[in-house]
Amino acid sequence: MYIIIIGCGRLGSMLAEDLSDSGHNISIVDREAKNLATLGSGFNGLRIKGIEFDNDILIEAGIKNADYIISATPDDNINITVALIAKRIFQVPRIIARINDPKKKRVYDGLGIETINPTELSVYILKSRIEENPK
Amino acid sequence: MYIIIIGCGRLGSMLAEDLSDSGHNISIVDREAKNLATLGSGFNGLRIKGIEFDNDILIEAGIKNADYIISATPDDNINITVALIAKRIFQVPRIIARINDPKKKRVYDGLGIETINPTELSVYILKSRIEENPK
Repeated sequence: MYIIIIGCGRLGSMLAEDLSDSGHNISIVDREAKNLATLGSGFNGLRIKGIEFDNDILIEAGIKNADYIISATPDDNINITVALIAKRIFQVPRIIARINDPKKKRVYDGLGIETINPTELSVYILKSRIEENPK
Repeated sequence: MYIIIIGCGRLGSMLAEDLSDSGHNISIVDREAKNLATLGSGFNGLRIKGIEFDNDILIEAGIKNADYIISATPDDNINITVALIAKRIFQVPRIIARINDPKKKRVYDGLGIETINPTELSVYILKSRIEENPK
C-alpha cells in the first residue's frame, strides 16, 4: 500500500520504518530536517521536509495516490488539520489521526475520522496487566 | 490494591484517575504542583509533590506497603532510577516502568523489570489496523 505518515517524531519514525520494512511504500513529512534524519539509512521511503498541512507538500508526498494517511505529530491541531484536508480535499480512502487530548475524540467522531490515542492505549494495557495480576 | 504512580503527566494522571475510579488505593508523585493539580477533584488518592526518586518522598507515598509501582514519567532515566530503588531497596512486589527509547528495553530485561513503551504499542496497533484493512 501507499502510506503517507505525517510527523517524524518518535511515533511517526518508528511506524515509517516498520511499515517500510514490511514492504509498503511510505512517504513521511516533517517540517524539521533533523527529525527526518533520525530515520535509518535503511529506510527506503520518501522524506519530505515542509509544513505538514501545506497542500503542495501533501501533493509532493503523493496524497493524490495514497491509500492511507496517518497524521501522527505530537500536535493535535496539526493532526486534525491534516486529517480534514486529506478527507475533504483529497478524499484519501483511509485516515487515522493521533490525538493526545481525549476530549478531542468527539470532534473526530463527528467528522468520521478514525483516531489513535497512545496514552489511552497505554492506560488500557497497564490496567489490564495490573488487574490480571492481583495481589 | 495499593498502587503508586510516579509522574503525573498525561499517562500518569489518566492512569491514576482510572485506577482510583476502579477502587484501588492510589498515591501519585510529581515534582510539579501544577501537574498534580490536573487531577480532577474526584480523585481520592494521595498527591505527593517531590523529587520522584527521593527515598523519603517514596516512603511518604507509601512504598513500603505498595503492591505495585508504575514509573510513568516522560523521562527514561527517572523511570529506571525509581524502578531500581523500588526493586532493590523496597522490594515492591510488582514494578512497571515506562520507556520511550526502545534501546533501553534490554537494560530493563537484564534487571527483570517489566516495561511499557507507549510508542511501540501504538505502532503495533496502527500496523494491525492498516494491515487488517488492505486496499
